Amino acid sequence: MAEYKMILDLDTGIDDALAIAYALATPESDLIGIVSSYGNVLVERACQNSLDLLELLGHPEVPVFKGLSHSSTTNSFSVMPISAQIHGKNGVGEVEVPKAKRQVEAQSGVDFFIEAAHKYQDKLIIVPTGPLTNLAAAIQKDPTIVDLIGNVTLMGGALTVPGNVTPVTEANINQDPEAADIVFRSNLNLTMVGLDVTTRTLLTNKETASWRALGTLAGQKYADIVDYYIDAYKVTSPHLGGCALHDPLAVAVAVDPSLVDLLKLNMKVDTKAPFAGRTIGDETRINDPALHTKAAVNVDKERFLDLFMTKLTALFKAN
Amino acid sequence: MAEYKMILDLDTGIDDALAIAYALATPESDLIGIVSSYGNVLVERACQNSLDLLELLGHPEVPVFKGLSHSSTTNSFSVMPISAQIHGKNGVGEVEVPKAKRQVEAQSGVDFFIEAAHKYQDKLIIVPTGPLTNLAAAIQKDPTIVDLIGNVTLMGGALTVPGNVTPVTEANINQDPEAADIVFRSNLNLTMVGLDVTTRTLLTNKETASWRALGTLAGQKYADIVDYYIDAYKVTSPHLGGCALHDPLAVAVAVDPSLVDLLKLNMKVDTKAPFAGRTIGDETRINDPALHTKAAVNVDKERFLDLFMTKLTALFKAN
Repeated sequence: MAEYKMILDLDTGIDDALAIAYALATPESDLIGIVSSYGNVLVERACQNSLDLLELLGHPEVPVFKGLSHSSTTNSFSVMPISAQIHGKNGVGEVEVPKAKRQVEAQSGVDFFIEAAHKYQDKLIIVPTGPLTNLAAAIQKDPTIVDLIGNVTLMGGALTVPGNVTPVTEANINQDPEAADIVFRSNLNLTMVGLDVTTRTLLTNKETASWRALGTLAGQKYADIVDYYIDAYKVTSPHLGGCALHDPLAVAVAVDPSLVDLLKLNMKVDTKAPFAGRTIGDETRINDPALHTKAAVNVDKERFLDLFMTKLTALFKAN
Repeated sequence: MAEYKMILDLDTGIDDALAIAYALATPESDLIGIVSSYGNVLVERACQNSLDLLELLGHPEVPVFKGLSHSSTTNSFSVMPISAQIHGKNGVGEVEVPKAKRQVEAQSGVDFFIEAAHKYQDKLIIVPTGPLTNLAAAIQKDPTIVDLIGNVTLMGGALTVPGNVTPVTEANINQDPEAADIVFRSNLNLTMVGLDVTTRTLLTNKETASWRALGTLAGQKYADIVDYYIDAYKVTSPHLGGCALHDPLAVAVAVDPSLVDLLKLNMKVDTKAPFAGRTIGDETRINDPALHTKAAVNVDKERFLDLFMTKLTALFKAN
């Protein structure tokens, strides 16, 4: 039996699609649900993409829950042009994935978080790879979950490197700095997997070609989807030489923190322009002996890439 | 015989005064000179303070060199009101220190850096605790010194915590971001001792009282000087509960890097508003296998404070 229960909170674009595959291929944790968020795509599209990808990967039993459709400080949300450029308008690189036969659950994503926190407690791992709006809303609705949840390992933020939206701000945190600040300042056992490490774990067309060569539908679709992402990186981040494995790295670290070097540091999120969305140490708690937050500042990229390719190739081979 | 030769580059205010004392009390390195900079005070005042303090501490043999009087991008320099508030108008907490009998050397600080780099090579440690204007000028005048100097351990910058001038900028780097960027992007063996660690090493009136009780002139003067600094911190940084030992920590780390946890990271300094002066990882060199820069991200504060008090108390007792 798996040691942990995992919930992903995804704005299902391309690296989120890789996070789903990584989670399904990780026996140390049961993927008990996917909560949907806005960001790379609208929340409705995130729901549909997650449903479709789960079915493509042979796991139609994993429930998908709808989360909030916009940030805690706005009334609506539109996808940024840069998001559509990187993930495609449909979020999965304009690739057509067969439509799932089922729908999202009736329960809200926020309520699912709260229910799971009480049910699984320290066995529960939550991995948000989009805005932190859903998790902040759950904390505000039931503050007791902060001390129940085993760990939250999020993809987002940038501590020791520049952001990718502004020089100080990473895209996920940028969507809802106020929600992120609630999450970072809470007493959650929180690990930040930010651009510090995710821009060091890169995939190229060589790896996607090996998936296509498997001759399976999942292998072919994922190769096509990720090739779109790699092409976008050639335009937006030519210095990297590949696409960054942001979201799957967060899933990997959630079950195996030894993949990264972690800096223990009480953190906060700036909410005022021009620094809004910056994830940084909280100078008022720098000498506080209780440290809740850890930021990944270095990564064993070879070991992660080996794990990533082994797990995903096996999963795609079977589907 | 001492293993290293050390040059301090100081804008001699109060924590610079503590850096002089720490360097004189450190037998692993010979203090072979002090280069003066603008910052906490004007460069002329920095020269005079260094001369006076060296004599107070029984070391009138250490030469003092005049460095540049303003940043690489300006034509003049005025002391910021906050600097005068923290260090006093005279830089040493309005305390009167007996005037030294000698003057600064005829050689410029920049030329002294270059000469010492060629003479001592990997035995040379440079510890700048003010703007990086002098060091950048030396590099530009003789780029070969970059590969000669043993190590540069600077007090300045903030990687994982906010700045103290703006949310992204620390005071020393803020004086001359362009010069700092030249230093950070050079191939110097560079260690940054920033606010990340210096705001964790704090001194209180209890320690200064013990110096005053020594009954020596140096003990009394340093107690008076540092009490001014502690009082200023009560106003400007009440959350810390003491004054930060910025500059002496850099001296300590220069000879004993095991006092801190170092993050290897190629860094740069932002030079454009509103982010000018921010010290941050260079995203274009994040996957470069050659790493020249190290940033201190944690400190063994107990061990440093023990060393600090043992060394300085012995020095003050003898003077």
